[in-house]
Amino acid sequence: MITSPSSLRRSERSRRATLDAALALCTEKGYGRVTIEAIAARAGVSKKTIYRWWPSKSAVLLEAFTEALVDATPFVDTGDIAADIRTHVTGAVRLLSTPPFGPAYAGILSELHHDDELAETVRTQLIEPRFAEAVARLRRAQEQGQIPPGADLPLGVEMLYGPVYYRHVLRKPSQDEATVAALVTHVLRALGAPEP
Amino acid sequence: MITSPSSLRRSERSRRATLDAALALCTEKGYGRVTIEAIAARAGVSKKTIYRWWPSKSAVLLEAFTEALVDATPFVDTGDIAADIRTHVTGAVRLLSTPPFGPAYAGILSELHHDDELAETVRTQLIEPRFAEAVARLRRAQEQGQIPPGADLPLGVEMLYGPVYYRHVLRKPSQDEATVAALVTHVLRALGAPEP
Repeated sequence: MITSPSSLRRSERSRRATLDAALALCTEKGYGRVTIEAIAARAGVSKKTIYRWWPSKSAVLLEAFTEALVDATPFVDTGDIAADIRTHVTGAVRLLSTPPFGPAYAGILSELHHDDELAETVRTQLIEPRFAEAVARLRRAQEQGQIPPGADLPLGVEMLYGPVYYRHVLRKPSQDEATVAALVTHVLRALGAPEP
Repeated sequence: MITSPSSLRRSERSRRATLDAALALCTEKGYGRVTIEAIAARAGVSKKTIYRWWPSKSAVLLEAFTEALVDATPFVDTGDIAADIRTHVTGAVRLLSTPPFGPAYAGILSELHHDDELAETVRTQLIEPRFAEAVARLRRAQEQGQIPPGADLPLGVEMLYGPVYYRHVLRKPSQDEATVAALVTHVLRALGAPEP
């Protein structure tokens, strides 16, 4: 049997319209009131089309959030690990302070506690790849002699991301620029990096 | 007008029965399916009694969780700050790995994102007092010369709690004993404490 490629391939235009509609609805109505019906109506696609590519509204919002996060939190390499991590963490803090992204992510985190499939998707599609990239950026700094050999890089990444999650899930005021800078300085010191 | 003290005072027996019923239901049915009706029936108290003292099921579970957390995470002072923080953080990690406490707290964290009153209650009744106690324990260590003057103690506390929240909200495997020990070592190093 020959299947038509166009029926299998997700149209980029429909995908983008679906993600944008989901984010817009999240801003207008709040995460809890977004429905697949409303996303379909706003995006001008059928519910069937949405369900062909995503199992739930959380999955739609996860894809939208992940794309925004990847854009907002680059792993630059200027040769200055402290500056580069500040750029990265500041991007994450800013995105989480911006509607609809912060509330959308809070909604996803809520859902994943009673949705095993979503929890697995969040870990494999969002958390693990980003975590690995962060470790890789620290490893390059290690190779350049900015972090000593043997430093526990994954622990360093958890110490960077942890306080950002802590404030986000507790709805505490997010880190300002000075606090991000202090956090980065402390994590690098914890990893045994020489003081600048 | 004279009000009867007994009508204002919350009966300790009813309070305890309500908290225990809420926790038991959370284990059996999961956070989302706990209702005030079911708590009242299980505890043998009226719904009216529960609503007199708590605005919502989340508030009941928050009080139950807070009591368990306070019991599980003492701030001991043996004179060894590293050992004492390990005791404290290990207690928190264990409690969050134990049903119904871990799932109950995840449920509370979910609710507080669309319940401003609950968010405020969590911050003022749970987070801020515990955070202040943790800073106070680090301050005593500072006074004993185990942490240098001028260290950013609140940042240190966020670096301790952050990774615990990070794993909990993402449903990653919780920290084992060695990981807690490494975290504590790293945070103390970040604060400039002399290596033991």
